[in-house]
Order: sequence, then C-alpha cells, then structure tokens
Amino acid sequence: MSGYSNLRKKMKKRNIYLKTVPVAEALCLAMDALDRDGLVGMETIPAHQACGRVTAQAVHAVCSSPTFHSAAMDGYALKAESTFAAREGRPVRLAKGSQCAPVNTGHPLPEGMDGVLMIEKAVRDTDDFIELETPVFPMQHVRRIGEDIVATELLLPQNRLLSPYDVGGLLSAGIWDVPVWEQLRMTFIPTGDEVLDFTTRPSPRPGQVIESNSQVFAGLAAAQGCLFTRVDPVPDNEDALTTAVREAVNGPSHVVVIGAGSSAGSKDFSRSIIESLGQVLVHGIDLMPGKPSILGIVGGKLIVGAPGYPVSAVVCFEELLIPLLSWLSRKTPPVRQLVDVELARKIPSKLGTEELVRLAIGRVGEKLVATPLGRGAGMLTTLIRAQGVTRIPVDSEGAEAASKVRAELLVPAAELDQTLVVVGSHDNILDVLGNELMGLTRPVRIASSHVGSMGGLTALKNRSALMAGTHLFDELSGDFNFPFFRKYLPGLNVACVNLAIRHQGLIVAKGNPLGISKVEDLARPEVRFINRQRGAGTRILLDYHLRQAGISSEQVNGYDKEEFTHMAVAVNVLTGTASCGLGIFAAANALGLDFVPLARERYDLAFLPEHADWKTEVALELIRSASFKERIEKLGGYETALTGRIMEPGQGLG
Amino acid sequence: MSGYSNLRKKMKKRNIYLKTVPVAEALCLAMDALDRDGLVGMETIPAHQACGRVTAQAVHAVCSSPTFHSAAMDGYALKAESTFAAREGRPVRLAKGSQCAPVNTGHPLPEGMDGVLMIEKAVRDTDDFIELETPVFPMQHVRRIGEDIVATELLLPQNRLLSPYDVGGLLSAGIWDVPVWEQLRMTFIPTGDEVLDFTTRPSPRPGQVIESNSQVFAGLAAAQGCLFTRVDPVPDNEDALTTAVREAVNGPSHVVVIGAGSSAGSKDFSRSIIESLGQVLVHGIDLMPGKPSILGIVGGKLIVGAPGYPVSAVVCFEELLIPLLSWLSRKTPPVRQLVDVELARKIPSKLGTEELVRLAIGRVGEKLVATPLGRGAGMLTTLIRAQGVTRIPVDSEGAEAASKVRAELLVPAAELDQTLVVVGSHDNILDVLGNELMGLTRPVRIASSHVGSMGGLTALKNRSALMAGTHLFDELSGDFNFPFFRKYLPGLNVACVNLAIRHQGLIVAKGNPLGISKVEDLARPEVRFINRQRGAGTRILLDYHLRQAGISSEQVNGYDKEEFTHMAVAVNVLTGTASCGLGIFAAANALGLDFVPLARERYDLAFLPEHADWKTEVALELIRSASFKERIEKLGGYETALTGRIMEPGQGLG
Repeated sequence: MSGYSNLRKKMKKRNIYLKTVPVAEALCLAMDALDRDGLVGMETIPAHQACGRVTAQAVHAVCSSPTFHSAAMDGYALKAESTFAAREGRPVRLAKGSQCAPVNTGHPLPEGMDGVLMIEKAVRDTDDFIELETPVFPMQHVRRIGEDIVATELLLPQNRLLSPYDVGGLLSAGIWDVPVWEQLRMTFIPTGDEVLDFTTRPSPRPGQVIESNSQVFAGLAAAQGCLFTRVDPVPDNEDALTTAVREAVNGPSHVVVIGAGSSAGSKDFSRSIIESLGQVLVHGIDLMPGKPSILGIVGGKLIVGAPGYPVSAVVCFEELLIPLLSWLSRKTPPVRQLVDVELARKIPSKLGTEELVRLAIGRVGEKLVATPLGRGAGMLTTLIRAQGVTRIPVDSEGAEAASKVRAELLVPAAELDQTLVVVGSHDNILDVLGNELMGLTRPVRIASSHVGSMGGLTALKNRSALMAGTHLFDELSGDFNFPFFRKYLPGLNVACVNLAIRHQGLIVAKGNPLGISKVEDLARPEVRFINRQRGAGTRILLDYHLRQAGISSEQVNGYDKEEFTHMAVAVNVLTGTASCGLGIFAAANALGLDFVPLARERYDLAFLPEHADWKTEVALELIRSASFKERIEKLGGYETALTGRIMEPGQGLG
Repeated sequence: MSGYSNLRKKMKKRNIYLKTVPVAEALCLAMDALDRDGLVGMETIPAHQACGRVTAQAVHAVCSSPTFHSAAMDGYALKAESTFAAREGRPVRLAKGSQCAPVNTGHPLPEGMDGVLMIEKAVRDTDDFIELETPVFPMQHVRRIGEDIVATELLLPQNRLLSPYDVGGLLSAGIWDVPVWEQLRMTFIPTGDEVLDFTTRPSPRPGQVIESNSQVFAGLAAAQGCLFTRVDPVPDNEDALTTAVREAVNGPSHVVVIGAGSSAGSKDFSRSIIESLGQVLVHGIDLMPGKPSILGIVGGKLIVGAPGYPVSAVVCFEELLIPLLSWLSRKTPPVRQLVDVELARKIPSKLGTEELVRLAIGRVGEKLVATPLGRGAGMLTTLIRAQGVTRIPVDSEGAEAASKVRAELLVPAAELDQTLVVVGSHDNILDVLGNELMGLTRPVRIASSHVGSMGGLTALKNRSALMAGTHLFDELSGDFNFPFFRKYLPGLNVACVNLAIRHQGLIVAKGNPLGISKVEDLARPEVRFINRQRGAGTRILLDYHLRQAGISSEQVNGYDKEEFTHMAVAVNVLTGTASCGLGIFAAANALGLDFVPLARERYDLAFLPEHADWKTEVALELIRSASFKERIEKLGGYETALTGRIMEPGQGLG
C-alpha cells in the first residue's frame, strides 16, 4: 500500500507536471526546438523512384521536349507557303520527295518543312504526288521544339511533393537523379506490463490487452510517407524503457514514439525518461481525447509520448504527429474536407476543454445526418465506424440534437451518399444486412446506431434515419409496430418490411445452473438480472411479461442495470456479472449460452416511402432475396415466413 | 512510298475500326466481359499487414475488448452501494483491502467491486483506509467487458478497404489473419522504335523520345494499391510485340498495358495483337485527349492499349483504368472534389467530342481563378502544372472567359489558397521567385501564365490575377508601366514593385556567325527573325526600335513567327530555326547563345493594393530580401538597384 501513497504524493505534483497547452502552441514549441535541416538530410535518388518524395532543391530541365520540331499527326510534311493557294475545287499538287514527305506522328519535320497536312486531308494520294484543297498554315500540326519542356528552365521548385506526373516530367526532361529530402523514419516502442505482443498470437486473460496501437501508427505513418519500425514491447520498468528509448534515439529514426505511459500515473515513465535523456517540450494538450500526449527532444530527434488508449493515441498522431511529420518532410499538411451535418443526438461537453467527437455520417434526403459515437478513449470501434469528427470548442457546453455542426471528413465525401443510416433497435440481422449490402456492385455501407425501437421512430420522425429497426409489441391489439407509428408518428405514412420473426427469451449460463425456466424466476433473490435500456422493445416486452406474471420491477434484482445491445446482455451472463437477461437466441447462441424461449416477435425495418431513396430500394431488394433468408435461418432463433414482406396494420405474426 | 499507300488504305478502314464509345459504355463492356471472381482471387494475410487491402469476407471478433471489467481511471475499486451515503462534510470511510482496492487504469476490477473512485476524489488516503465525500454510482469509471468489441460479433463487413484503425480493431479482436482480395498486379509494355529506355540514361537525338509513361503509370497504379511491373521497351515489330503481350498475359498480372500503338496508324499494332490473342472490347472512347484507348480481354485478363502521348495516356489511366482497378479490387472509385472556378481565358471546343481541359487554379480574393493550360496531348508539363481539370461536354462549343465552370480538383483544395496567380509577361525571375516561395515555412505556389504584359494588365482588371509581370515602355514619357496603367486600368489604384532592371537584346547563335550587331541588321534578307506574340512588352520594345531605325515590319523576315516566352525564342535560335530573336540575357545565357544588348528596361510586378492578400505580402517581403537580389544577380543580365522597391510614376529607370 505504501507504493500507493507514493502515487498519491505524485498526484499532488501532477498539476505542476501536466501543464496542458493548446495544440497550436505545442506544435510551435516542437518546431522551434527542432533543427529541421540538421535532423532531416538531403539525398539523391533515381528520378523514377521519386514519386511521393519531396524535392530538396529546384530541378532544371536537362533536355528539351520535344528535342525537335515534330509531326503532331500522321500525314505529309510540307512547306506551308506552297499550300496557300489551295481552295475547294482548286487543288494544289505537291510532288512526293521534293515538295512533301510522309510523316507519322512524332517524326521529326524534314529540313525546310514547316507544316503537316493530315493524311485524311490529301484529296489525292498517288505514289508520286498528293493534292490538297485546304491550305496548311505555318507550324500547323507541328509540335515545336521545346513546346513542352525547354532545357535549363525550372521544371520543379524545391519542396515539391513529386506526383506520378512529375516523375514523367523529370524523365522526359532527361533528369535521372533528383535531390530529395530523406524519407522520415519512425520507431515505435510499445510499453506496458499488461500488453500482449500480437506477433505471438496471444489469448488475452483478464487484465491483459493486445497491443495494437503500433500497427495503427504504422498505417498512419505509411500514409504520410514515413518508414516505420516497431520494437518489441517493453515492460513497465524505467531502466528497460530508458534503454529502449536510448537505442531508438541512437538508431536511424528521426522520430521516436513511446506507446502508452504518457500520463502521470505510478507506471507512467515516458516523461521522466525523456527528461533524463533530453528535454520535455510539452506534457499535455488542451484536447480530449489525446490530452496526456508528450512532445520532447532527445539528441536532436523528436520524441513523442503517445497515450495508451487507442482513440487518444490516434488523436495524438493526427493532431500532433501529422503536422510535425509534414513540417519535417516539407509537405503541405493534409486538410480534411469539411461538411455541415445535422446531429441525430445531443453532444454534451464540459466547458474548459476542446473535445473531438467522432461521428457516423450518412445522407438522409437532402441532409447529412451525424450520430455522435461513444467517446470512451478506449473505444477503438468508434475509429472504425466514424466517417467524420467534430470539434466542440473549449468554451462550449456541447451541441443540441438537430443542430448543425461542422464535421471534418475521415472518408471521401462520396462515401456518405452510399451510407444507409439505420437507427433503432439492434438485431444481428442488421449485421448480416450490412455485410450483404457491401457485396453489391454498388456497395452500400450501413451506419447503424442502437438506441432502441422508440429511438428509431423518433429518428424517422426527425428524418435523421432512412430506416429504423423496430419490434414494438402492443398489448391491446396484439399487433406490432403500427399502433406505435399511429401514436408517435401521427400523420406520417410509415411503411415497414419484416426482417424476421425472432425468438426472445431468457439468456442464462451454459447448463442453466440456476434452473431459470420462466419469467417468475426473475423475482428469485439469487437471480441477478441484466436489463436493456428504456425505450428498447425488449424492455417493453419484459415489462409486459412481468405484468402478466404479476411481478413488480422492484422485485427483479438488477432491473436498473442496463445494457444497449443483446450481445452486451449476453456478455454479462457469460462472465457471470449477471445470471440472466432477456434477449434474442442469436446472442445466446453466439456466446454458447443457454436460452429459455419466452416469446416470438416481429422484427421490422420501418421507413417513410416518400423519403425512400436508392439505398432504401437496394436494401429492400436484398431483404427479399432468397439468399438473405438463408443467411438469417443459419443464425438460428429466427423464422423467415414474413421476411421481405411489406407489413400491414393488424397483421401481428401472421 | 508504297508502304504509305498501304497506310492510306488502312486509313479508309479506320472509321470501321475506331468506333468510339462513351467512357461509361466502355467501362460496362469491360465489366461485362471480365469474370472478376475468376480473375482476382482471395488470400489470407496477417492482419497487421492488411492496411490498404480489402476484406474478401465478413470478419467476426474472436476476443472481446476489454475481456474484463476494468478501471477506466487510476483510483480505488469499490462497491458502489457502500458509497451512497457519502456527502460533503459527511465522508464515508472504506477499509483498504476488504472494502476498496487500489487500481490503475486498465486493471481488472476485483471480484464483487462495481465502481471506481478517482484517486483525486479520496479526501483522506492513509495506509489503512480512504474517505470519500461523493458517492460512486454503479459502473462509474469502469470500462465494461465487451464495451468496445464483443466476441463473435461482426467487426468488419466484406469488401471493406482496411484503414489503419481497422487493423487496430482486428488485432484487438484477436484476429491474426484476415481474408482479403489479392492485390492487383499490372504489367506495362513500353513500345515504339522511337522510345529510349530511361534506365539507360540516354541522350535523345531528333526523332527520339524518352519513355516516361511507364513511370507515370507506376505511380498512378501504386496510388491504387496495384503492384506494377515494367518490361523492357519493345520495338514497333508485330511479332516481338505479340510475344511480349503473350508473356505478360501468361504471367501473374491481372492487367496488361501496352504503352503506345493504340491508334490506327501504320505502326499501331496493339489492336491487331489483342484481336489475334483475344478480343477487343473497345477501340476508341468519346473523349479528348485519350480517344485512341483500347480495352480488350486476353486469357481472362484485362488488356489495355494506352495512347502514347503522355496526356492521353494519363486520361486513359484515370478515366478507364482507375474505375476498372477499383472494380476489380472491390474498392470505391476515388471521386475528385468539385469546385466552381472562373475562367481567366476562353476555352474553345469542337462540338461532338467531350474534352478534358487541365486548369491552373488559384485563389484571387473571393474567387477561384482557373487558367486553361495547353491542350496538346504531348504536353506533359500541363499535367505537372494543373490543379484541376474541367470537362467540356460533347454538345458544347466551349466556355467563355470570365464564365464559371465546374472543376475536378487534382490537388487538395487547401493548396488553391496557397497558390499565387501571376499572369502577364514572362521572366526567369518568376521561376526564382516561385522556387524561393516554396522554401517558406508556409510555402506559396506560383501559378504563372505567360500572356504578355498587356494580358497581365487585363487579368488585374478582371481580378483574375493577384500580380502581373509587366515591362511596358512608353515612348512619350520614357516611363515604364504607369502610363499603361492610366490608359488601360483607369480609376484603379495600381501599385508595382520592381523585380529587376533587365537587359533586352538580340539573341544570336554562339559566335554570332551572321555578325548581327544592331536592330538594322534585322532587315538583312539572310537574317531569319523569331518574334514574340502581340501584347508582349518585348514585341512593343521591338516595334519601338524598328521605328527608331526606320524599318517596317515587312522588312523583317520572320516578323510574323511568334513564340510566347524568351526561352522559346532562344530555343529557336539554338536549333537554327531562326537566326535571331529579341529577348533577355538570361535566356541566351541559359542556352549558351550570344547576346547583343539593345536596351535596359524595368521588369515590375503590378498589383492592386486593395486586393492584396497574405500571398502578395509574402511575395513582396521575399522580393525585398537580400538573398533574392543575390539570386537574380547570379542569373546575369539583370541589375538590382531597384529590386523590391515600390515604383512611382515617372521614375523610369532611376
């Protein structure tokens, strides 16, 4: 415990240590401290291998291109003057050899000739002469010498990022070698007692995490044209880590990144190691996630302490490393395309910190709708699912639902138009649908947001989703969904297509050790239940069954513990956090759990026909296909009698 | 000559052969003919090497992440219930060990604990207990099991282009291998008797061209994630070429490109070879440049006949190959960002053909101004200089100057704001300026367009340039530029900064074989002159000196032959096309020619102070610097007494 008291003492010092600065200031501090010309040298490489590299000096043409006046067309070279009298019906005749000569495109113009007649324009063409009825003006169909490139002239300036076209220009200008800035090299040192080396293909036990940040950095670095090396993970040991950092700094890399350990905890050594070997320039940026980033300089090299959480690490790379790598390599920093999006949900934010919030974005009618993704710094999947990111300024408490915010795109803008926004209840069938839609010739990406059936209806009403997963059961009518459309979407023409009849039941541990067999068992004190969130159709179903059984929510141990998806409920059961939850068969089956059937229900996708677009059409067509039904049946726990049919009010399960 | 008659006969057949189709139709024909699944297989590769590859199947998570409930903060794990009574001033005390346990971020939550108190929130912290005054709610500061990834769930759908983030997700989900589509492979066969292999570092003689298209394609292919192989150039020999194509098709490549020979000339064998080995699908597209492109299929592989001219070849790649490579590799085809630009010059176009016109684009005030670049299919430098491209539709005769057109951007939009548009007279100093501007921390790119001094003034008037190079001499006042501002830009506040006093003179062959020493010599019949275009300051200077000498333009042999730059004039002299031209010393010097001084003149950059922006400021600052003066002096033929000074009316050369 005394180690912990030491931590506590360190904590008191933390506010002194972690003095956060705005990102722009952090970048200036690093640029001021680094000697760019000393760090990144010049080298000469073959021109044809220089694509993506940056010129270190102005490049002047060695050869002209063309090096000669040449024919720009297949035809006859001639003296333009000799054709001036030609008119329709009054041809001029030129003798082959003396007065004209055949040339193919690219051929040099014979001495004394200054024009080319296109071969089609010779009205007669014999072995001895040609005749033409249209005059040729001087230099017509002639590519002049140096028309493209003049020897000695500036071809490309310094600090030019060489494109494939530029490489073509270099070669055409007779330039075989080109002076460029060295390619940047980065070494990444993964750290932490808890991290597992992915190269060993480990099976993580509780408390262990598979190290993946290095490979995210590898990909991001490659996109910046930076060579990347990862060393073996180093445990949380100050000496071992110091050795690793010293080795990396003494190696050929211009930039060294220490993965994790950049905060101010008891095992966060990055700061003290950088201080011992060189200088800490920045510890902490005014941005969340990514706040505990470190910039330092050791032996003239840039050293970066990257946070361990994947989202924080990516922010550290994108906000700090990309501008610095661009600056070091003399490239223009990439700028993300900006679009205005309408928020499907509120983004709350704390005053006093700029926040980056990732967004799932898709086109719904005329507008782009953005769903804020979870903001946990450990949520790697938010990186996968995001099409954009928005900044909540330091002086803002966030943004309201339905308000417009500016989003920076992480994908090409065209992808947003191919994204089908589905909001509402979650079912694994949506994953099957999403996967199948990606198999189309014109693929459709699903951006789905799991907010329960009622949330889906709200999204339809607000035109913030094209389709909504819904399985709302109405006790009075015994019907699904339509009574809720009438009540919550009055006056709107809502259609719905059935995805499947699915089986809901109690998900219990393998072998059902507590012998749970009916809803009444949820009242037993030893049964720990895990519930779904308010507004979820599954929760409405639970409440109905509890009422039928005469059980109040207070009698259910864990009624107030909520998860947002069937799978999350099942995971709680798998790990023993809960002994039971209500969910679909597919979730229980996927994790090898037992399933006590409780009800059959209709899982539909609702949509507004007037607002349907090509993506809706494509999805409906796919849902109607035989192969889609087959895939659902393979999941188990579903019936496909209604799958793909447009439902009618009062239809229930029939 | 009889070979030529054969060509003539072939020409008659050409209209049958070269039946052009719209690009979209060409793509459909290729996609219909190719068996994509048969051509591009599936393979399994290590997940950490999969960035940029495309999933061939849905990928489901193997591990959950986190695999356990874990602390999201450094602090104490505890039972939330035990803290509910805590209030400010009424602390709850928890014994270490039994009631709470220290945890660092990422640690698993001990059995029975369901919340974490941040270490800062412990108001007392001894070796035996902690005290807190704020309650902890259940799961507070806890990362739940499966919060990020749930084992068995869909992680990524099929046909997903894997990002660096995705690779992180794969590894975190315990996925070590991933099924992806094979990486595309392309073989390029350069052809032509006239092409020189750049790997031999040749010196081109007249009639010869350095083969560079293969390396442009290599760079463009790499950007599409396609592996690229170039074979040695093959001469214009049908047998040799057939052998090369057969070998390439029998090799591992999915796509084979024949460079040049795709048209219908006497040495264009691509079509007949593809016909002999397989099938021609398309010969000719309804697009200029790029028209003589061929698409075919041989042994199930895509075979492309690319035109030989560099711009046509690039259009063939960008319009045909990129969509087909995207389709074959299951990627979304890249879409260029669109912007509206104002044309600085008219674009004439023929009815009946869609035309692609490359544009130099830069921001001038509120608008983006685009200068159409030369449309010669051989003008590789237009590829280098273009920031965008516009399409003139098949039914259009072009676009007027000052009209708006839609441009597809070839560079990031942000680059347009860094581009300084300079229109007007050309001088090599502009190249020096352009190169120096690229050396700044915030680099500025010059987009310069050489239309003569008068053209520059017009551009200033139309706000289609930020600065204009001008050296207009007024006979009456003996002053430069200002008399022209008053006459042609009345009412506008025009400023100008001097770049240099430059020496204009007669550029003659080395050793001055014709003994040209004064303007009167231009009237000698054996002297062939090369002139500058109308509106060029140099031409105005010539006319002044001719008048002074009493010589009429008719007396000057070659007065009507025009070039647009000093360098082009000098090249004419170098190659003997002309014996003399009026131009600047720098041009003569660069090509080792002799120079007969005729006049000193002021070369200024004119601008409108009210419309100056940061780029103007940065350029002015650079022009004032001592190092800039030094660089100009090194060129020779310039005086820098006035360089960087803002000129006054009536100042002349003093």
